[in-house]
Amino acid sequence: MKLDKYIGCSRAARKLQKADLVLKNAKIVNVFTDRVEPGSIAITNGMIVGIGDFQGEKEIDLEGKYVTSGFIDAHLHLESTMVNPQVLISRAAMHGTTTFIVDPHEAANVCGTDGIDYILEQTKDSPAHVYVMMASCVPATGIDDNGFTLSAREMEPYLKNRRVLGLGEVMDCMSVINGDPAMNQKLELFDGKVKDGHAPGLDDLQLAAYVIAGVTTDHEGSTYEYVMKERAMGMTCHIREGSAARNLEMIVKGIVENNMNTEGFCFCTDDKHIEDITREGDIDHNVRKAVSMGISPIAAVKMATIQPARCYGLRRTGAVAPGYDADLVVWDSLKDFNAQMVFYNGELIDDRLRVRPKPCPARLMDTVRLGPVDPQDLKIPAGQGDFPVIRMIPGQILTEKVIMPLPGQGEFVPDGRLDKIAVFERHKATGKTGVGAVLGFGLRGGAIASSVSHDSHNIIVIGDNDGDILKAVHEIERCHGGYTIVSGGQVYDTLELPVMGLISDKTYTYVNKKLKHLIAQAHRMGVPRDMDPFITLSFMALPVIPQIRCTCRGVYDVNEGKFLT
Amino acid sequence: MKLDKYIGCSRAARKLQKADLVLKNAKIVNVFTDRVEPGSIAITNGMIVGIGDFQGEKEIDLEGKYVTSGFIDAHLHLESTMVNPQVLISRAAMHGTTTFIVDPHEAANVCGTDGIDYILEQTKDSPAHVYVMMASCVPATGIDDNGFTLSAREMEPYLKNRRVLGLGEVMDCMSVINGDPAMNQKLELFDGKVKDGHAPGLDDLQLAAYVIAGVTTDHEGSTYEYVMKERAMGMTCHIREGSAARNLEMIVKGIVENNMNTEGFCFCTDDKHIEDITREGDIDHNVRKAVSMGISPIAAVKMATIQPARCYGLRRTGAVAPGYDADLVVWDSLKDFNAQMVFYNGELIDDRLRVRPKPCPARLMDTVRLGPVDPQDLKIPAGQGDFPVIRMIPGQILTEKVIMPLPGQGEFVPDGRLDKIAVFERHKATGKTGVGAVLGFGLRGGAIASSVSHDSHNIIVIGDNDGDILKAVHEIERCHGGYTIVSGGQVYDTLELPVMGLISDKTYTYVNKKLKHLIAQAHRMGVPRDMDPFITLSFMALPVIPQIRCTCRGVYDVNEGKFLT
Repeated sequence: MKLDKYIGCSRAARKLQKADLVLKNAKIVNVFTDRVEPGSIAITNGMIVGIGDFQGEKEIDLEGKYVTSGFIDAHLHLESTMVNPQVLISRAAMHGTTTFIVDPHEAANVCGTDGIDYILEQTKDSPAHVYVMMASCVPATGIDDNGFTLSAREMEPYLKNRRVLGLGEVMDCMSVINGDPAMNQKLELFDGKVKDGHAPGLDDLQLAAYVIAGVTTDHEGSTYEYVMKERAMGMTCHIREGSAARNLEMIVKGIVENNMNTEGFCFCTDDKHIEDITREGDIDHNVRKAVSMGISPIAAVKMATIQPARCYGLRRTGAVAPGYDADLVVWDSLKDFNAQMVFYNGELIDDRLRVRPKPCPARLMDTVRLGPVDPQDLKIPAGQGDFPVIRMIPGQILTEKVIMPLPGQGEFVPDGRLDKIAVFERHKATGKTGVGAVLGFGLRGGAIASSVSHDSHNIIVIGDNDGDILKAVHEIERCHGGYTIVSGGQVYDTLELPVMGLISDKTYTYVNKKLKHLIAQAHRMGVPRDMDPFITLSFMALPVIPQIRCTCRGVYDVNEGKFLT
Repeated sequence: MKLDKYIGCSRAARKLQKADLVLKNAKIVNVFTDRVEPGSIAITNGMIVGIGDFQGEKEIDLEGKYVTSGFIDAHLHLESTMVNPQVLISRAAMHGTTTFIVDPHEAANVCGTDGIDYILEQTKDSPAHVYVMMASCVPATGIDDNGFTLSAREMEPYLKNRRVLGLGEVMDCMSVINGDPAMNQKLELFDGKVKDGHAPGLDDLQLAAYVIAGVTTDHEGSTYEYVMKERAMGMTCHIREGSAARNLEMIVKGIVENNMNTEGFCFCTDDKHIEDITREGDIDHNVRKAVSMGISPIAAVKMATIQPARCYGLRRTGAVAPGYDADLVVWDSLKDFNAQMVFYNGELIDDRLRVRPKPCPARLMDTVRLGPVDPQDLKIPAGQGDFPVIRMIPGQILTEKVIMPLPGQGEFVPDGRLDKIAVFERHKATGKTGVGAVLGFGLRGGAIASSVSHDSHNIIVIGDNDGDILKAVHEIERCHGGYTIVSGGQVYDTLELPVMGLISDKTYTYVNKKLKHLIAQAHRMGVPRDMDPFITLSFMALPVIPQIRCTCRGVYDVNEGKFLT
């Protein structure tokens, strides 16, 4: 700490001068002693300088309410919220989240280091700690068609950026395990720093090989048994509640039933729409749900504060104690966790927080470059025996491979049970188009398309007729990216996402309204009520999550590592 | 990890090749899940690659014995063992300690960076992880006469040494708290790294100011109440069992009685003679004692392994899990903790371990430079009213100030209760000599002297007559440093410590034998049986530990921060 700042803090700590701000009459959750103690919190120069009885230039009476450190989202993709990062931060702050560990993986897949710089720049002076994990798998695998390739060489300049904490989720597990030299260079580059994992469904031996490479976190665990396999190897497990993937219930149930210690657990959202954050909350939702299931409130608070802070080496974040940043949340209770006031570096963040998105470079607003689209490419032969169909599962981003004959005479025609899925390369106008069949989406009388399509973010579309599928793809092209629904040859509505084809340049109310409108229509068109149509759709092209996907190169079996069409 | 090494580990982890070594039939303590599980441990390239059922090029049947990770001494001064660092490591290894966080504070006080380089060099290829915390307070305070001064400028080159983890115990608390610019430069230099503390007896407000500066550990806590004050502020508390200072009983009693979590606790020895390590053990002694008092064996193992590893950012140390260094200890039981086998990086360390001390630069063997010694300097007036006497306390390095008249007519003459203490500057031959009176040492008929005298390591001596005091000082000068006892004008025996006046160049059996001989004689001459004469003596000149000390400038009141004579 700079000497001037320190001297002010030290003098206030010793009561030689008044603190800048004193929060009086609080019930303070101490994550070190596991106690809740009454007291006042003294803040100077944005830092907590004392707990006890202090006088301040400004004083706020908390009337006996609970105070914790600001919550930490241990892993998220800001792009997935679909709003400008500053907009997301201002909304999440209202739920008590003040620190974000972000992986600009989506931005990097579309725009390379320009995308990473966009995230760093937009979050630079925001009222939150935003740290970046360097996107490690751009492209996610060698079988993907994305916008850019990031190697260790492009990553190296970011090592000296103090907001870059380590290597982002290493999705390409097999390259790690097999000792791929380019992957090893990235792992070596971040030696001594945190390397986030992404390891759904590895067997015991693969997981050990993955951990040996230095990967120490995972947020993909969806069962208690699996995360305990990871915990036994020392991994920190981020319990995820996103818009599509919701793993908390399964994991927390196991923790409670087995009386397992919660030391190695954190919370994250990973991919969560602004609409869901506004509706049900951010990390406060994870905490509330965990507490409702039987985790002690103090243990849950630790999972949301000091544990992720320690996991990422943040020495001054995550506790209400002297020397910690004055990121503080005042709660109504340790059951309901409704944030009453939120402070970042000692400043009250209120609902009128000024959101001032910085200008976005023009080249990031023009990233959808579609090649020639040939209607013939959408044809799938039928009546020739079994076909590998993608079964979609509500509340999961995992899929299931179902081998079955396709309906139709000579050519696959969606029949009310099965829909057609198609993916169009959109970065380099190559014209690559992959098609397949899905089960469980239930769409009738139209098509749903998106330029948000993990991780390469090509245009993905599901529909029950080729006409609406093509119409939807061209609508996405027209607005430089977005979500759209086409029905009966007409565009029903479109949420434009012109920033890299991922992010809106509008307010969150605009985005929310459009989203609600589109989601309601998708459900009316047959998508199951317990499935988020766009988020679930956006994972159907991701060839690193079992079991089966559709990319612009065709249908891919993740478990077997090969294309099936 | 280098790719070659990784590929071998990954293949062995996946059973594509045999492991180098498999420890079969073990009961493995898992510090992540708090479980003890049966299994085999597979090791390749010095690293644990799997837990389960493996085949190895070499296999050892552990017959159901317990295995933990090697223990970590979270804070020690290798110099205090008085033997070559390699000798200490070989002895401590027999007790299961495989990682040492050392502060070369004593070496630096005598020889500056040459002393630090000596410690780094001697421990470089030793069969243990030895990490260095940069000595922060050389000299310990501005009122001390030591050999060298270390500023941030001299420390900077060490930042790039991967074995230097942070800033060593910051003893000069008041310089920290008051924002001394030179101290702040050192703290700033190690920003983002661990800064060890040394904070006995600060009040709540001072402690907060100290912690705000970024100091996050302390090993000086001697009561449960005090360490909990530190824990509440997030400090990690190293529970110390050294030769002189033994804090475990008081702290662990409080933890057990209050059912406090042990998350923020580690173990250390700080200053422990090789003789005590050989006799009662090293960190295994702390663990055994803690368990005997009611700490669960797994919690105690965590305090000795994963917790200090995490505290110091050691990512591959402290657990029996894939990706961790194969530093393993086989124990007879989790009650007695007698080490049966010890592995470092997968290699069995046995009693015949070759100890090959490296050559010591000649200038480090010639550091005792005594100025003119004037017998008149030893005189203390008596019969002039009260005098501030140093009361020594068995098992403590704290002292107590007792105001009382000195016996003698005109001049203080030790009377059977009180002894004379004297300190002679020995680095720059300035001739500075400080004298005082001590209570509780009980020495009769001679003098005990030492060139080990924290932290400036001037020559310190306690005796009941000036003749023997002077004789002892000249004996220390003659052998370039050491411990000596003089009785009736004759040197009884001397342990030579020619390396910086701190360390022997002989074997540990030689040192042990000499020490036992000298200590037994000190006890025969009246030093209380429950007091280690030399270690206790060595702290009597340390002007950073309350309440009162004697330096070569005179008697010093630590609490009031001023010289009393």
